[in-house]
Formats: sequence, structure tokens, C-alpha cells
Amino acid sequence: MSGTVAEKLIADHLVDGEATPGAEIGIRVDQTLTQDATGTLVMQELAALGLDRARTERSVQYVDHNLLQADERNAEDHEFLRTAAQRFGLWYSRPGNGVSHPTHMQRFGIPGKTLAGSDSHTCAAGSLGMLAIGVGGLDVARAIAGEPLYLRMPQIWGVELTGELPPWVSAKDVILELLRRHGVAGGVHRIIEYHGPGLAGLTAMDRHVMANMGAELGATTTVFPADDAVREFLRAEDRADDFVAIAADPDARYDLDEQLDLSTVEPLVARPSSPGDVVPVRAAAGTPVGQVVLGSSANPGLRDYAVAGAIVSGRRIAESVSFDVNPTSREILVDLTRMGVVARLIQAGARLHQTGCLGCIGMGQAPAAGTNSLRTFPRNFPGRSGTPDDQVWLCSPETAAASALTGTITDPRELADRLGLAYPELHPPAHASVDTGMVVAPPPREQALAIEPVRGPNISELPELDPLPDTIEAPVLLVLGDDVSTDEVSPAGAAALPYRSNIPKLADFTFTRLDPDYPSRARETGTHLVVAGANYGQGSSREHAAITPRYLGMRVVLARSYARIHAQNLANFGVLALEFAEPDDAAGIRVGTTLRLTGLRDALAAGDPLTVHDVDADADFTVRHRLSDRQVRMVLAGGLIPLLRNESS
Amino acid sequence: MSGTVAEKLIADHLVDGEATPGAEIGIRVDQTLTQDATGTLVMQELAALGLDRARTERSVQYVDHNLLQADERNAEDHEFLRTAAQRFGLWYSRPGNGVSHPTHMQRFGIPGKTLAGSDSHTCAAGSLGMLAIGVGGLDVARAIAGEPLYLRMPQIWGVELTGELPPWVSAKDVILELLRRHGVAGGVHRIIEYHGPGLAGLTAMDRHVMANMGAELGATTTVFPADDAVREFLRAEDRADDFVAIAADPDARYDLDEQLDLSTVEPLVARPSSPGDVVPVRAAAGTPVGQVVLGSSANPGLRDYAVAGAIVSGRRIAESVSFDVNPTSREILVDLTRMGVVARLIQAGARLHQTGCLGCIGMGQAPAAGTNSLRTFPRNFPGRSGTPDDQVWLCSPETAAASALTGTITDPRELADRLGLAYPELHPPAHASVDTGMVVAPPPREQALAIEPVRGPNISELPELDPLPDTIEAPVLLVLGDDVSTDEVSPAGAAALPYRSNIPKLADFTFTRLDPDYPSRARETGTHLVVAGANYGQGSSREHAAITPRYLGMRVVLARSYARIHAQNLANFGVLALEFAEPDDAAGIRVGTTLRLTGLRDALAAGDPLTVHDVDADADFTVRHRLSDRQVRMVLAGGLIPLLRNESS
Repeated sequence: MSGTVAEKLIADHLVDGEATPGAEIGIRVDQTLTQDATGTLVMQELAALGLDRARTERSVQYVDHNLLQADERNAEDHEFLRTAAQRFGLWYSRPGNGVSHPTHMQRFGIPGKTLAGSDSHTCAAGSLGMLAIGVGGLDVARAIAGEPLYLRMPQIWGVELTGELPPWVSAKDVILELLRRHGVAGGVHRIIEYHGPGLAGLTAMDRHVMANMGAELGATTTVFPADDAVREFLRAEDRADDFVAIAADPDARYDLDEQLDLSTVEPLVARPSSPGDVVPVRAAAGTPVGQVVLGSSANPGLRDYAVAGAIVSGRRIAESVSFDVNPTSREILVDLTRMGVVARLIQAGARLHQTGCLGCIGMGQAPAAGTNSLRTFPRNFPGRSGTPDDQVWLCSPETAAASALTGTITDPRELADRLGLAYPELHPPAHASVDTGMVVAPPPREQALAIEPVRGPNISELPELDPLPDTIEAPVLLVLGDDVSTDEVSPAGAAALPYRSNIPKLADFTFTRLDPDYPSRARETGTHLVVAGANYGQGSSREHAAITPRYLGMRVVLARSYARIHAQNLANFGVLALEFAEPDDAAGIRVGTTLRLTGLRDALAAGDPLTVHDVDADADFTVRHRLSDRQVRMVLAGGLIPLLRNESS
Repeated sequence: MSGTVAEKLIADHLVDGEATPGAEIGIRVDQTLTQDATGTLVMQELAALGLDRARTERSVQYVDHNLLQADERNAEDHEFLRTAAQRFGLWYSRPGNGVSHPTHMQRFGIPGKTLAGSDSHTCAAGSLGMLAIGVGGLDVARAIAGEPLYLRMPQIWGVELTGELPPWVSAKDVILELLRRHGVAGGVHRIIEYHGPGLAGLTAMDRHVMANMGAELGATTTVFPADDAVREFLRAEDRADDFVAIAADPDARYDLDEQLDLSTVEPLVARPSSPGDVVPVRAAAGTPVGQVVLGSSANPGLRDYAVAGAIVSGRRIAESVSFDVNPTSREILVDLTRMGVVARLIQAGARLHQTGCLGCIGMGQAPAAGTNSLRTFPRNFPGRSGTPDDQVWLCSPETAAASALTGTITDPRELADRLGLAYPELHPPAHASVDTGMVVAPPPREQALAIEPVRGPNISELPELDPLPDTIEAPVLLVLGDDVSTDEVSPAGAAALPYRSNIPKLADFTFTRLDPDYPSRARETGTHLVVAGANYGQGSSREHAAITPRYLGMRVVLARSYARIHAQNLANFGVLALEFAEPDDAAGIRVGTTLRLTGLRDALAAGDPLTVHDVDADADFTVRHRLSDRQVRMVLAGGLIPLLRNESS
């Protein structure tokens, strides 16, 4: 067959529908990835689905989010996940073993395979020539159960890379350049496919950086070809046999085309508080910083730490800076130790933290109020750091290290000029210190079926979900702007994350970054609506952002548009996601406005247009939806789990 | 002069009183140590005292407790401490640089000097032949201001060490043996002074382990001679010139004598939930453990990690165990990295955490409910881990490492027999990787006086304290048992610690481990009393355990006896600490009993006996107190700060 890498991957796995942009397709899922902040629900969903044993080629449960253990709840989650993974035949990556994305790439990623993950950065595995898609937990649970993953066929966005990156510029700057050009919704309903001669200068881990943060453009996923760089990566990981070459055909055509000459890229930063608000570092130079953090799945590789280590080697960080270093995997930490990078970083003043996501999801490392924090992370949504009104900037490891030394945002080229520094030559070990012992294989089937997952007192049951009523007349409890992230709907962070397996408790955090009174108002009101702007639900894949407001009575969202994963999550949990036909219709709606939708069930089932009656203004307006027939059935049933129950009874 | 080491150190610094056991003495303080959980109040107290600049030879502010930064409050504290240290002329050890006690020993400890620290484990510096005493924050603030430290002259308890430790037994087992013999109050009003030929086999860092946990016996402090082991330690730290030999005279006589033949010591554990509940490891062998933690000021040395690293080298921890490793200082972490110990620990499955106290003060690392946690820490008071009803055991690094491998409490000798393991020979570097750059010297005087400490929104003012009324008629709000620790009065842990600089908020945590409703009942009631058993206020030096109940209205405590530091803290903050003359008098008192004390001011000033009237029973009983004249004046004034204000006006 002929086509782009993305088209080939989809064609190889297509089990339902036609791969025409906009059409719903179902694809076979070879591998799944879950992490602990979303995985506790996935395990409860596997139980609700009545699964005996995972039917994928490889499903892996990681523990990388809830690692601080401020009280007994995190450790309870770990024990639940460990035993539930055994029960359902999943591999289990132990707490502190590593961030899911780089660890999966190191241990399990295989070119040509599909991967569904309950984490929005699952797309990072596109670096190996996989079709890797972040989705809500329930979609992952279905995939583990052997069901296809449904999505709307995206457009393929070919980004041709030419030239070579200049010194002091790295992969993070490339993806920041795309965000500078296109913003946080620039990739919605698209698969980014990199091609062209510029690829030759990018290692598989460089590509991980770019594929990971494709999520920040809203892209369905990102793919790279599986070429010599991938072959080399797998060889160094002792997995040469897993290599399969995959390339676009010479006559492949992309739905959209973009050019990017790597030699023109310069050091960039995303300003507070959006990954899409990107400017050259030189335009922000001199801004004082109180904290600099290296780590996360956005800059996870050995080279990202090694280049920073080389820059700060023999120097000392500024007195006002906390320089925090979060290794991304046990393997990388061991190699960094052997290379002497760990000692160099510590002696320059770094605080070396445990392996994990940590500050990236607000699990510690919150900066002081009123100070700037500069991070190599993928996201800087408002408050995600754990500090209200935070000022978080995103950058490359080179910019981070230079800024840690000066105490202000610093273009690494300028520092290099000033200190007479040559761009470091790095010498990573030819073989990684491959260590598989902390990823535990599931027990044999018969033994697994006898295991009872250990449910501590903090592990709730899934809430019961009732069918969609035919008429909804209810008040609007929130009117929100554009680009509301799932961090703002259901926050991560050290306070909320321990309750990710406890929906009734977690519900108390819903929307509180935007309106601290929402949970109490919602509990009082019961059924209600929420109104939002464009790109509603961007960011993290957490389905909690659909479940907790639904649990509190939110049955309908009216928005200008939705982020991909969240739209599916809303349908999975029976929330009706509608779009304004005319954006101006949103203008008259206030908090407290009562809206009425009648004849909902018939209209949805028949595919008829929907009319909303504004009771206060006594006026009607038209809304539309983008639900597939499959999604309509879910919403009518109250969600996917009740739908499956109805169908099987 | 002639005498014991302790007598010589006291004689060299005596500025008030006579060094007769039981008499109040004042001693000159050469050095002070504060950490961040107590230091924020000390800085506020320095401001309240109107200090211009520290008058000690060396005062150091450490940041080792509040390192998780779950929200902006920890980082605010750090910035306040950094700038306040500059303002008052203190050295500042930056966050993540190290736990105060080993770091102070490495960088600043000098034989023959006195050290006052607002941390109960300050006594660890006795390992170098210092007189190092843990006291409340206000006493440290006074010491920084050049005032003497007042205490009751303890008895000198000579512990003669003979013999040599057998393989698989180390310093931790020695101090656990003393706790096994004497319990948590066995050292009250005593200085433990080690002497004898057995000392020759103990390094300075081994002695740190024993001196540190002298606090668990309730001892005023612990001293060792400054001998060749101390000389060797200072040489390796590039501070050979700081060495001064100090030894007891041959004819020295101790007030009490104890013999300990090191060759008879075996591996020991303290059972949940008291450091004094000690049994042989073999008696607890086979108990399953879910967590094993290395670290804390109780086992802080390079050898403690290296011996564990050697035991687990090439092996793998049990599947159900989280093996957490907390390095105690940046210097030790660099040396462990260079020795290959870090790589060995990680490859065996350890989670390497940032440098600091962490789980020892409940700042993360809370175990799952219902599981056993085995730790090389000094303390296992109930709930201190952050998990209600926790099951925390204390042991040596050898026992910890052996148990991490098996997943059950394991005598390392038994494991060694089974695996054919020889007791590891360790080869620490001849020179430590001395690194002074993260301990920041204060600026020159004129520059310092111009600095305004940065007070974030979470830094409260000290509460105003009113004088003791002449009559108190009020209800008893709590009736407590023996050995209530300051952890139970004002908890550490990830939830409470961020408020250590914010008394009104912190007050909401007071006594909540014992009675969740105490804060609300106290706020409702106002003036009230608390009744307790023996050894009230053991453990941590935190003066918050006096201030927050006082803030909530507790004016009087009636107990059978008091721990040393807490008794002084109560006086410092104007709480009247009384003792039952007849223990049986406590029997009739219930929660809600109203007690009346009349003519308090005259009786206290005159030294007359005090009578308490039980209003409900219409009966009287007699109480006594152990307050010095100085302390009586404080209590009458409402606390030391109001007293000083009165005296200067």
C-alpha cells in the first residue's frame, strides 16, 4: 500500500469505518498505557466491564503521578493498582520506576504498533513510529478488553523538516516554534507527521519531545517514521529485534503541508500561562526567576539532563534560585549517575528529586506566590503548579540551565558568548543500563483470576449514572471563557490527586480554580448546565473532568468547541456536549440563566436539530453536536457503562 | 580543672548559677542551629526582641523540613528565612542542602563549643565533644541575641562502653539497647556521657547516631570525648584546624554509672509506636513490611547508606516493598554517587528522594493504612508518619536493607547466613566532597541592617499574650495519658507544616490526633485547662506545641511530669505547668470538670504551695511546680516576650 506513515498505521489497524478525514473510525489497539492518577478508575471500569484478562498484546500500569504520599491515600492507590494489574493481566511499573512515556518508549514501544493511553501525552510514543493516542480512561479500559478505539479520522498534517538545529537550540524549541505559529488549538483534529531531511539530525528521544507536546497543539497524535534513529534507540535499549522500518511512500500526500527549516529556530519560551504564548527567549531576557525545574515527559531524555549538567558544571546557581531536577526513569538516573551528570548537577546546587512527574502535575515543587518559575515541562496552565496566580514559563533544558546560573531568563547563546562556552558535546553510553526488574509481569491466567485487588478505604465505587432525561430545564451555573483546561475543571496537585480514586471526595475540587463555590452550588442545585468558549477541556486526558461535574449534576455543556479527548470523555459519562450554531447566541447567557431543552431523546436519536429555550429571555436558539451514532447512544443511556449493561441484558 | 567531659564543657561556659544537679544554670552559647519548621517563629522572635545582628560565633538557619512544596507556602517560608537570615546575620543553608544535624556536624561543629538548636535532635553534635542542647525557638532566639541559655543542671550519666560491635550490629542498635533498658523517660534531667575502651571502634558519625537518639531517652543532651575519631572526621572534612582534644580526667566521677559491653548487642527494633518499645529483631522476624526507609538524622552517615547498598547490591527488593532512600546532605549524596552506592541502591529497586527530613517528620512517604513501615528514623510516635493508626518500626540500616530484600522484618545475621554474605567492608573516600557553596554567609552588617525580610501572605505575626490572671476558673478540655508527644499536641506532617509560620491557621491542628474537636471546643470555651500523665510533651522541640494551645485558651496544664524542652516552652509562652502532688488526685478529673485556682499571682511570686479547687466535686487538692524564679516571672507576665517588654519599658 501507499501513503503517509499515519495512513499506513491506521490502515493496518482499521476495523471499522473508512479513513476519510471527519469520519468515525475504529482501530485495533495493540498496547495500552495507564498511569496512577487515571488508572485507579480504569481498574474500576475493568471490573464494571466484567473483564477476565487483558486482550491486548501489552498493557502496562505505571505509577508516576501520586508519589509524595502526604498521607496514606497514595500508598493505598499503589497497592490497589499493583494487585488490580495482577488481577487483570497488566504489567505493573512500580512507584518511582519512571514517568510512563519515556519508560514505555524504553521498555515496550514497538514501531508500527498502536497504543492507547489514559494520559494526554501518550502521543509521545509517536517518536518510535507508533500510532499512540491519549484518550479517557474508559476508552483505555475498552481497549484493554479488546474493543476497538473509536475516533474521528483526523487530517494528516505533514511538517517537512529541513536544515539542522543551531548550537544551543534543541527539540523543545522546535515544538515551541510550532506552538508559536499555531497556538494551543492549531493541531485539533489533525495528526502531525514529521518528514524530510531535517529528521536525520533528531534522535528518537528528541522526537519524543516533539511528539509529546503535540498534545499542546491539540493534535490527535504525532507520528515520525521508524528510521535509523529509531533503530539506534532500540539497539541501545537491548531491543534491536523490535525494530521495524516504517516510512512514508515517496508519493505520499498530506492533507496539509508545513515547512520548518531547523536552522532558523532560536531559543523560545512559552510565557505564563499557556503553552501557546511563545516568544523568543531574548524577548523575555532579564526576567527574574525563583525556580528552575528540569524534567517531565516533555524533556525526559538522558541528553536533556546531560546538556544542563554540562552548562552548570563547575559553576553555581544563583542565590535566589531553587534548581529542581526530576529524573524521568530509574534507567536514566542510573546512566546519569554513571556519566557523572548527577554529581555535576548537585555540586552546582541542584535539588535532585525522586523519579516521577512531580511538579509537572502540581505534585510538589509549587513556587512562591509572585515569583517566576521556569520549567522544561509541557504545560503551564493557570494554577497547575499548585500556586494560585502562578507565573510558570516553559523552555528547553539549555535555557533552563543558563537561567538557573544567572537567576534571570537567559538566552543560552548569550550566556555562552559571555562565558566563552562551546555547545557541549555529550557522550551518552552506547548501551543504556537496561533494567527491567521494576516492571512486574502479570501472573499466569489462573493465578491472576484468583487475585482480589486490595481496595483501601479511599477507593470508591464508580457512581451510578442515570439515562438522559427527555426534558432538561435547569440553570447555568458557570459561564467560562476559551481554552479552559481539564486542570481547571478537575485539578491535579497535591491536595486533589489523592482522591482520584474517590469520586465523591474529588467532586469537591471541581471547577474550584474558577469558582470556589461551584461544588456547593452544584450540590444544592442538582441538574445544571455549564457554558464555555472555544477548545473546552484542553490538556490532560483525565476523565475525572467529565465524571465529577456529572456527579454534581452537570448534564449539558454548551461551548463553541471542544478538545478531542474531553469531548469523548463527556460522551462516555453521559454529558451532552453541544455547540452554539451562532457564537453570538452565547452572549446573552449569564450565571443563573435558566435554559430548557425538550424532546431531547427523540431529536438526538433521529439526528434532528436541537433548540434551546432561554426561559428568562423567552427566546430560542439553535445548537448542534458532533456526536457519532455510537456516542448518541452512550449519552442517551447515561454513559458508556450503562449502555453496555443495557446491551448485554 | 578536673571532671567529666560534660562538666568541663559546662564549666567553660557557665555564666550564672552553680553546676549542681537540679540547680538552674545559665550557659554562654557559641553556636545556634534553627531549621525551617521552627525557624520562621525564631525569626519573628528576633524581630520582637529588636535584635540588630546575631551575637553568637556562628548561627545557622537550615531548610530541611518543609521541602515538598505542595502549595506556595513552603517556598514562601524559604524566601522569608533566606532574607531574615541575611537581615539578622545568620548563615543560610539552602533548601535541599541537607538535614541540619549532619550538615552542621560536617560544616560547623567544633569540639568544646556550645550549640543551642530549635530542634530536639540538636544533641547529635555531642558526637564531636560539643555541649549541644535542643530547646524551644524562643530560647534559641535569646541565644542568638547573646543571652545565656538557662537550664536545670542535669546529672551526668556515665555510660562505659567496652568490647566491639559484632558484625551486622551498628550504632543504632547500641542506642536502641539503651532505650530497651531505660525507656523514653530514662534520660530525663541527665546528660549521657559515653566513655571507655569501646569508643575506639565508633566513628564520629556512629556517635552521631547515638547522640541524636539520646533525645528519645529524654536526656538533656549526650556528650562524647573529642578524640582521634573526631580528629579524623574533621580532617576528612578539611577542617583539621578546628580539632581540639577533650577528654574526661582519669579521676572523673559520674553521678550515675552504666556498663555496656558492645560485643553483647544484637540487632534491635523499636515496635510501633514508641522508640522505647524495643525488642530483638529476631523476636519480630517474619512480620510483613510494605515500606522500608533509609535516612534521617538518626542514621545520616555515608556508611549507613553504603552498608545498605552493599547488602542489596545485585539483588532485588521484595515486590510488595517500597524502599525509600532519603540522603541527608548534598555532600553525602555526591560521595555516595561517586562510590557507586547510589547506582547499587537504585538498581536494587530503591526510590531515591531529595535530601532532607521527609518521612521522618511526616513530610511525604506516608505508608498505606494497615501496613508495617520499617525505618532507620529516630521516632515512631503515633501518626507521625502521616498515616492515622500507623505501624512504624525503627531499626538499623543493616536490618532495614535485609528486610527490604525479604519483605519481612529480618535479622541481617540470619539473611547473611542464608545467602552466605560476609559483613560488608566499606571504603569511604579519604576526603569528603566538601562543598560549602550552598551554605550562604550573611552579608556585612551595614548591608544586612538594610534588608527587609520578605514576608509572604502565610507569615503571621506572633500572637499577643496577656498576663496570668490571679484567678482561673475554667473547665478541663482534655484528659490525656502518659508520654504524650509534641507530635500529638501540634503535628508535623504535610498538612500542618506549611502553617508553622502562621499561628492562627496552625492552631486548627492542635491536639487533633487525640481529639479532632479540640480546636473548635477550645475556641468556644476560651480559657481552659488540660490534664496529662507522665512525661508530657516528649519528642520534638517545637514551641508551637505550647503556643497553639495557649492561643486557643489553654492557660494551665496539670500533669504528673513534663519533658524538659516542652516545660521550658510552656513557661516561655505563659502557660502554667503544674504537677500533681499526689498522682491519685488526677483520678477524679474528667473532661468537663471545672477547676478553680485562686490567688495565683501572689502564691507563685511568694513560692507558696498552690491549691486547686474541684468545683464539681467541691474538693481541694495540692499541686506543685518546678518553675525557677525566672520562669515564674515569665508565666506571670504571660510569657517571655511580654516579660522582656515590661522590663525594658
